[in-house]
Amino acid sequence: MTTPTKPRLVLDASAQDVLFRRARTVERFTGEPVDDETIRAVYDLVRDGPTAFNQQPLRILLLRSSESRTRLAVHLSRSNREKTLRAPLTALLAVDNEFHRNLSRLFPGFPGAADLYAENRALRERSALLNGALQAAYFIIGIRAAGLAAGPMSGFDEDGVNREFFPSGDLSALLVVNIGRPERSGERPRGPRLSHSEVCTTL
Amino acid sequence: MTTPTKPRLVLDASAQDVLFRRARTVERFTGEPVDDETIRAVYDLVRDGPTAFNQQPLRILLLRSSESRTRLAVHLSRSNREKTLRAPLTALLAVDNEFHRNLSRLFPGFPGAADLYAENRALRERSALLNGALQAAYFIIGIRAAGLAAGPMSGFDEDGVNREFFPSGDLSALLVVNIGRPERSGERPRGPRLSHSEVCTTL
Repeated sequence: MTTPTKPRLVLDASAQDVLFRRARTVERFTGEPVDDETIRAVYDLVRDGPTAFNQQPLRILLLRSSESRTRLAVHLSRSNREKTLRAPLTALLAVDNEFHRNLSRLFPGFPGAADLYAENRALRERSALLNGALQAAYFIIGIRAAGLAAGPMSGFDEDGVNREFFPSGDLSALLVVNIGRPERSGERPRGPRLSHSEVCTTL
Repeated sequence: MTTPTKPRLVLDASAQDVLFRRARTVERFTGEPVDDETIRAVYDLVRDGPTAFNQQPLRILLLRSSESRTRLAVHLSRSNREKTLRAPLTALLAVDNEFHRNLSRLFPGFPGAADLYAENRALRERSALLNGALQAAYFIIGIRAAGLAAGPMSGFDEDGVNREFFPSGDLSALLVVNIGRPERSGERPRGPRLSHSEVCTTL
């Protein structure tokens, strides 16, 4: 039986700090590079996060070349443009709206899973958005687990980004995430959070 | 400078295991209760996770009473119904599509933020879905940080749940998450994951 004085979390305080309490959305980064192997380690951790029917719709474009950054930058809001061009690495997170094509491999226990989605693009788009966003959150947590900071942004012209990077129409842009080591004074102050009683209701 | 032999993650192996590598979606739980204080500790950790404009659209209904469980159960698929009625606690995660009403308080640095959404319900719904799903993922991570297991499910009649629990139309159901301690043999085997090279592309 638990008592009021027992710690409620098993995750130690240091991990709580790294992933949530001391982590901040960052707008300015040091020049230290973020290599592909680090992103691989992040992905190999967070790929275990759950999605419905094991859909895994998230796709990650790592924009390293100045050409790829420029292709993205023209579709960002002005304030997001500057910080993105200065970040060591920018990830363009997208979702595969045709994820059902993989379900026979990813969710073999229910062979009919793909049929639930095959005829209904709107249902697939909603499911890809929901489950891709779950995975985007796991990815942000993973960036922090690597000792790095993330600057996620949704302020961009989605249609423009989709035309530029995903002309086939199968994928849709979800979020742009700048990644690097935070520059002192590059962290935004923590915004106010809704209290437990504003968010949680017991019935 | 990093070298190939340096660990790429700062999060220790035990935390990696608790949050991702050993964690599983669980279908059967022991009878041990999950108290409100534990959920409060989870929320007070994961509320720090980032959302666009600090929107925080997630709302959490904790279904404890058999009456509230029954109200939900009729809208679940048959296989989800049984495991939900047996779980120690069920959280109905929803999003507030009228989140913009809180933005002057939550994102005071940009007084015009609410105006971006005020006239466009479709934009609000998409943003609430995206950001609410990010927060749902933080919540699942938080459940695991408390040493508990989560069983997230999207197999339910959304319209039915919305009519039953959110008749005003402001909120929309997102995900149902059963919570408790896993019963041996109640864990599903890990489904196959997409490889790094299938998901990540460098440009």
